Amino acid sequence: MTSDEQASDDLPASADVGLLSPAWAGTPVADETGDPAVLRAMLDAEVALAEAGAAVGAVPDAAAQVIREVAATARFDLVALAAGSRAGGNPVIPLVAELRRAVTAADPRAARFVHLGATSQDILDSALMLVARRAIRLVTGDLDATVAALAALAEKHRGTPMAGRSLTQHSVPITFGLKAAGWLMGVSDARGFLAAVAEALPAQLGGASGTLASFEELAPGHAVELAEVYAARLGLSSPPLPWHTVRTPVVRLADALAGSAGALGRIGVDVALLSRTEISELHEPTGGGSSSMPQKQNPARSVLIHAATRTAPGLAAELHRSAIAVDERPDGAWHAEWQNLRELLRCVGGAASLAAELTGGLRIDPERMRANLAMTGPLIVSERVSLAVGPVLGADTVRKLIAESAGDPDGLGGRLQAALPDWNAERIRELLDPLAYLGASDALIDRALAHVRATGSTGL
Amino acid sequence: MTSDEQASDDLPASADVGLLSPAWAGTPVADETGDPAVLRAMLDAEVALAEAGAAVGAVPDAAAQVIREVAATARFDLVALAAGSRAGGNPVIPLVAELRRAVTAADPRAARFVHLGATSQDILDSALMLVARRAIRLVTGDLDATVAALAALAEKHRGTPMAGRSLTQHSVPITFGLKAAGWLMGVSDARGFLAAVAEALPAQLGGASGTLASFEELAPGHAVELAEVYAARLGLSSPPLPWHTVRTPVVRLADALAGSAGALGRIGVDVALLSRTEISELHEPTGGGSSSMPQKQNPARSVLIHAATRTAPGLAAELHRSAIAVDERPDGAWHAEWQNLRELLRCVGGAASLAAELTGGLRIDPERMRANLAMTGPLIVSERVSLAVGPVLGADTVRKLIAESAGDPDGLGGRLQAALPDWNAERIRELLDPLAYLGASDALIDRALAHVRATGSTGL
Amino acid sequence: MTSDEQASDDLPASADVGLLSPAWAGTPVADETGDPAVLRAMLDAEVALAEAGAAVGAVPDAAAQVIREVAATARFDLVALAAGSRAGGNPVIPLVAELRRAVTAADPRAARFVHLGATSQDILDSALMLVARRAIRLVTGDLDATVAALAALAEKHRGTPMAGRSLTQHSVPITFGLKAAGWLMGVSDARGFLAAVAEALPAQLGGASGTLASFEELAPGHAVELAEVYAARLGLSSPPLPWHTVRTPVVRLADALAGSAGALGRIGVDVALLSRTEISELHEPTGGGSSSMPQKQNPARSVLIHAATRTAPGLAAELHRSAIAVDERPDGAWHAEWQNLRELLRCVGGAASLAAELTGGLRIDPERMRANLAMTGPLIVSERVSLAVGPVLGADTVRKLIAESAGDPDGLGGRLQAALPDWNAERIRELLDPLAYLGASDALIDRALAHVRATGSTGL
Amino acid sequence: MTSDEQASDDLPASADVGLLSPAWAGTPVADETGDPAVLRAMLDAEVALAEAGAAVGAVPDAAAQVIREVAATARFDLVALAAGSRAGGNPVIPLVAELRRAVTAADPRAARFVHLGATSQDILDSALMLVARRAIRLVTGDLDATVAALAALAEKHRGTPMAGRSLTQHSVPITFGLKAAGWLMGVSDARGFLAAVAEALPAQLGGASGTLASFEELAPGHAVELAEVYAARLGLSSPPLPWHTVRTPVVRLADALAGSAGALGRIGVDVALLSRTEISELHEPTGGGSSSMPQKQNPARSVLIHAATRTAPGLAAELHRSAIAVDERPDGAWHAEWQNLRELLRCVGGAASLAAELTGGLRIDPERMRANLAMTGPLIVSERVSLAVGPVLGADTVRKLIAESAGDPDGLGGRLQAALPDWNAERIRELLDPLAYLGASDALIDRALAHVRATGSTGL
Repeated sequence: MTSDEQASDDLPASADVGLLSPAWAGTPVADETGDPAVLRAMLDAEVALAEAGAAVGAVPDAAAQVIREVAATARFDLVALAAGSRAGGNPVIPLVAELRRAVTAADPRAARFVHLGATSQDILDSALMLVARRAIRLVTGDLDATVAALAALAEKHRGTPMAGRSLTQHSVPITFGLKAAGWLMGVSDARGFLAAVAEALPAQLGGASGTLASFEELAPGHAVELAEVYAARLGLSSPPLPWHTVRTPVVRLADALAGSAGALGRIGVDVALLSRTEISELHEPTGGGSSSMPQKQNPARSVLIHAATRTAPGLAAELHRSAIAVDERPDGAWHAEWQNLRELLRCVGGAASLAAELTGGLRIDPERMRANLAMTGPLIVSERVSLAVGPVLGADTVRKLIAESAGDPDGLGGRLQAALPDWNAERIRELLDPLAYLGASDALIDRALAHVRATGSTGL
Repeated sequence: MTSDEQASDDLPASADVGLLSPAWAGTPVADETGDPAVLRAMLDAEVALAEAGAAVGAVPDAAAQVIREVAATARFDLVALAAGSRAGGNPVIPLVAELRRAVTAADPRAARFVHLGATSQDILDSALMLVARRAIRLVTGDLDATVAALAALAEKHRGTPMAGRSLTQHSVPITFGLKAAGWLMGVSDARGFLAAVAEALPAQLGGASGTLASFEELAPGHAVELAEVYAARLGLSSPPLPWHTVRTPVVRLADALAGSAGALGRIGVDVALLSRTEISELHEPTGGGSSSMPQKQNPARSVLIHAATRTAPGLAAELHRSAIAVDERPDGAWHAEWQNLRELLRCVGGAASLAAELTGGLRIDPERMRANLAMTGPLIVSERVSLAVGPVLGADTVRKLIAESAGDPDGLGGRLQAALPDWNAERIRELLDPLAYLGASDALIDRALAHVRATGSTGL
Repeated sequence: MTSDEQASDDLPASADVGLLSPAWAGTPVADETGDPAVLRAMLDAEVALAEAGAAVGAVPDAAAQVIREVAATARFDLVALAAGSRAGGNPVIPLVAELRRAVTAADPRAARFVHLGATSQDILDSALMLVARRAIRLVTGDLDATVAALAALAEKHRGTPMAGRSLTQHSVPITFGLKAAGWLMGVSDARGFLAAVAEALPAQLGGASGTLASFEELAPGHAVELAEVYAARLGLSSPPLPWHTVRTPVVRLADALAGSAGALGRIGVDVALLSRTEISELHEPTGGGSSSMPQKQNPARSVLIHAATRTAPGLAAELHRSAIAVDERPDGAWHAEWQNLRELLRCVGGAASLAAELTGGLRIDPERMRANLAMTGPLIVSERVSLAVGPVLGADTVRKLIAESAGDPDGLGGRLQAALPDWNAERIRELLDPLAYLGASDALIDRALAHVRATGSTGL
Repeated sequence: MTSDEQASDDLPASADVGLLSPAWAGTPVADETGDPAVLRAMLDAEVALAEAGAAVGAVPDAAAQVIREVAATARFDLVALAAGSRAGGNPVIPLVAELRRAVTAADPRAARFVHLGATSQDILDSALMLVARRAIRLVTGDLDATVAALAALAEKHRGTPMAGRSLTQHSVPITFGLKAAGWLMGVSDARGFLAAVAEALPAQLGGASGTLASFEELAPGHAVELAEVYAARLGLSSPPLPWHTVRTPVVRLADALAGSAGALGRIGVDVALLSRTEISELHEPTGGGSSSMPQKQNPARSVLIHAATRTAPGLAAELHRSAIAVDERPDGAWHAEWQNLRELLRCVGGAASLAAELTGGLRIDPERMRANLAMTGPLIVSERVSLAVGPVLGADTVRKLIAESAGDPDGLGGRLQAALPDWNAERIRELLDPLAYLGASDALIDRALAHVRATGSTGL
């Protein structure tokens, strides 16, 4: 890694390449959301604008062609563009200046058709929707893999008993398959919502105040058509109205991303918990090392999933806040969206990538699950004892028997036998068997799998 | 208001009746979300549980009947229940104890069927979904009224010009109808999402760890059926799995409420802004008074809508955070949902109620709109001048003409005439007429109205 | 609890008495932050205003006396006041109307001196500072108790070894005393900050736009003096300027409360974790029951501390957001503060009360700590082995020896002995003894205790 | 900007250089918070560790010297380090591997002293505190400049009247000097808090679980001393305890940064508002251009200050959330801090830089202030009329006179004269003169300036 070819000194001092964000550093989503990807998407929007203009006769075909070619080949100094965005408040202004300069160099006649009729928000909103859709395609791939892995775990471990836990304490037995089915439901539903939102992301084109007036000027009677062609070229949907200050698309995107984060985050915290030294029922595919303790195998993926997803609600909330926007373009609310949306995409993208790895290689220790289950002994089915024996002996007596067994769980059987002389030992043994108190776990797993098959598009 | 009958001393010291929340104080939604409403919903869940038990033979019909009657008639001390919830961490535990005591008084044989097989979360989650659905029915009514009022404004004012504003400055002209259409799109889409989510809210029933084991014990082979009857009695949907730690329903509810808040909040801030003394284009139906300045007419509804809705994203984010939950019942994440969900319902409910009033009686001042529009003079169409004249005179010349007119807007016409001797005065006048540069505003309003009609269920 | 005297039907439908907030329901802080307490504080502010007016000759002494008496004895309908606050946007407007009516009834000549010269924000801001200070006095009491309990635990358990844990895995040994010292540092520092902030809370008095113009009108040349007397009567500090839109006092309060929440929340999650069935090193004084599982002893206090404190950062953030406020009184940002501040006080108050109980009666199981520590065997000191033996055998060899022992920790000693034939058994035994690798734990505990003594005011 | 030397293709695809963050792009703070700066700070920490080890005899001086030299000269591939941080969950692990490799190349004997005894958190926490302090030094410089500019404005415009505004409406007159004094108070207090916090930022050194055990092993009896030397070398404070999970330093830092953001953000929104086309009392030094409307002068700095600062509370809240941390190193809470802290530093840094520019060159238009003030005519002093005339004519009569003047403000004088035949015209004119109702504005400005001088360290 120490090299003369690509060293820290070669990076701009301000560059963030993910050193403080291990959850997404090095992932494909990181590469789809970096400044180069944003630049590419802005250029895509400028090209689509020129081509849509050409389609309705507002822009000469030749000019649109030049703009396309220059956008594809010109090189832009991103650090300078970023610094230049300060004066006007957004990166489109310096980009258009640079693009126009480059187009002028190629064909001066085409220069005035660059960005023609558009406002900065048209380009940047469209670009961010493109970035989102491109990133989400990667995310849904990882969610699909996660769904497949979890479905397999639910199926395979439908008969693997473990302690259910509530409020940190053993409650009643469950199966690991049922736990996996719960994770599965969460991820599958989140994936469905996210994919639907991503498919519907709209292009933005409205001109300075969302009236399309500039486009009416350029192509009288064809402004709406121009906007529709523009959207089609970008592969985005065409909204009824420009949404400069109707931010429904952004908040739905925020919702879908935050929902995905939650579904993944839950797996992260559950796996981290169940891989604790004292519990040790689950293990990551390979453990993360430690800088000082050679014996440690940290659940690094789970930890990073947790870290990435816990920040998603706050980022999504910023996007919701920006929906409370004045005027035809707000004075700050819009600008606050950009970086928050990018960070949100990255957090979810990183978490999805990690979750696919984690669930795909998760190591389950059924023996340890049974051993932990045994810690509580027959008390783990004290609910069942209450239900089954309560009507016979009375609730108070049962409570007393259970309380007496708190320090001596294995004595519960004897106490019950003494209190129920008519019951044979087998009946009492079965009553106290955790594995006989799994309820409808099996049927519930089937319901979850059926739900995922019915609603999902992931090949299950 | 000063009375011996119902004075502050009669309220528990801890009571919050909305004194610090004018946005929702005194609204129907406040009454559907107070502690009495939560209590009622918890009792509804206990009754539905008993009746579902009866439906599958786990509970005698007579016992279910007694539980129903006692739940309907017994009186509970909410202050004591609230204080009593501390020991076990939730209000269901003391409520069940009280309910069981009351049932015992009515018919001792029925007592053991109270809460049979359920866990606290089954009751509280179901109750909160009931509370949410009841509150949201009120909210959607107000959203419907708002949609209707906005649609009428969009139609009526499709030809009322005003200044478009971006980044606080006049940009190009719009119509007030188009602005109203934007508000309308936001509210209508939010209303659709909210209603869909509210209709799908699920009941919760899973028992101690979501396996339905207790219900299998009570009604072997019928636990899933029992859960479905329970949901049906409550008028809630029956989910594939218990969702003790799969919080998709809660986060979708949060999303839909936050989305509604944003759509309403935007109207609040826009109206407050446009009713500023210096702008004065809009006025609330009746202004709020001041405690010290008799002349002031404050846009109190807009201000309160803003105040209520700006907190919604944070509340929704808490619900998203709680989705990252461990175990079969988490150790705090669940508990943090309750009050946040209630406050979120109240904020949105209050804002919707205010918005229905505000939009229903909003006073529009077209004259002032025109006067403000005139402040920028023909410079407000400088974009059009650039587009129309730029190709003739060159972009630099046009920019120079406009810059020279910055301090003398009305001189722009003369400067253009001088530069374009071939153009007749009428052509230049028309070019500089803000009312001739409204673009596709009309068509866009039609698109918005058509979208609302196509997607809405509000009688438009 | 079921009674005819005080039943749910007697509460206003909208009342929140804490049914969904077990963390603070029934606590003294709840009673200091309910609407009755807010009302009392607003009346206190009105009385102080009249008396300050009297002090500078702007209000007749007799009138001030009447206002004081009426404020002390009149009864107000809080539900009606809350509903009445909607029209003007805040509760002061209807309160002043009612107070003036009551004063008129007592002495018509005094009526016009009610609220004389003040604006609503003067009264409400001052009232909320009073409410905060009164609540925080209770909170600091509980923090003091917590500090004392934690200091005792740190001292008592300075020699109680347990596993240190990082990223969920055993790392190297610590002592429980050191863990308690860390909790102590957090709470003690937070307590100091909170008390300092509470002592400095300012009164608010500026009149309509913060110029004191009305008071200058009433008492020429004495407005600033009037403001200072007003603050003194309320026992609040007198700020250099009115802070209608300079919200430093509010954000510092938010910071101090959120900081306290974090310090307490950390104890909550740590205790909940360490009381897990599989870990079981700590236990709450008495466990919380379960509505369905008689054997369960839930760490209910810890769970509620966690639930209450995890929402504090979001509430504090709302107060920070409100600091970005326009004009001389903002159009919504101010209004959003009130309920968020109250909820924040309640969350912290509830958590502090629970923490005092929890830490005061926490049950520590040193045997279980040792047993858990033993789970990792000598591998828990593999860091030490690396440091001590690495220079002799080389890092790679040590890593290999440790890796070979992963499945057979107790074999590490033998492997080391074989590799280090010159070392005697005692030296190797000591090297591998977790209790001999506690580092500077003792000295660090002393530093923490000294720091708390030096900075705290809690009698340590 | 289009160049072959430094084009977008040369940046890593994932790089964020601020294209979506114009508020801080291109600022010195951006360069102090990029990944290269973080890398440098981590290397500084490793060097300080080696030198502290040398100071207590745990590391040979020669080895420390080699480590220092290699850290200063070796080049690291940040993209690879970032990607490599995923496996272990933090960037220190791959950095130590690379550093050790580079040290080995320089002097194999020194290699084992790299990172000796430390844990990843020691290095990363210390590095982030260094980054924070370096960035904050730049921030406080900009805050000092802002304070100086605002103090000058407060002084210069102490007699410049303008309309006070509350809830969007004209309330009573103020002076621009008083408004500037309010901004000043906010920034000065925030600056003081931030500087104090920055000076107190602690180094982190505790080893694997905060016991300093490894350092005791390496330098028996000198571990605490080693930690103190380490802190001193870094120029950071030495805390009583390692703060791996006692996150007070981080939350105080968050508080101070969020407080600064609020103080700056308020200026941003106020300036943006007062530069609205219809108000136009303030103008930025030079306006931001528009990509489509040549006439527009956008308040770009104010907008970007608003955008940057409105996200600060959410970022600070994430840091508070991370304080609720389990174990001796938490499983995600810690990891979530890093990027949020960096973004927070950048937001505040960008806003401070913009605020220094904005306030330093703010253009004030006293004529327009007077003209706007005149819009409300004498009604802007209706409060004064009530206070002065109310006792004579009765409150109801005054209210009626004012109400009658709502549509005819200039008629108020005549109405008053008719009602008060004994008052001479001059007395009535003076009563209605907005400039005669400025209250204690002057004295308050003096108080603010004195407060800033007394508490600030900025040369005033």
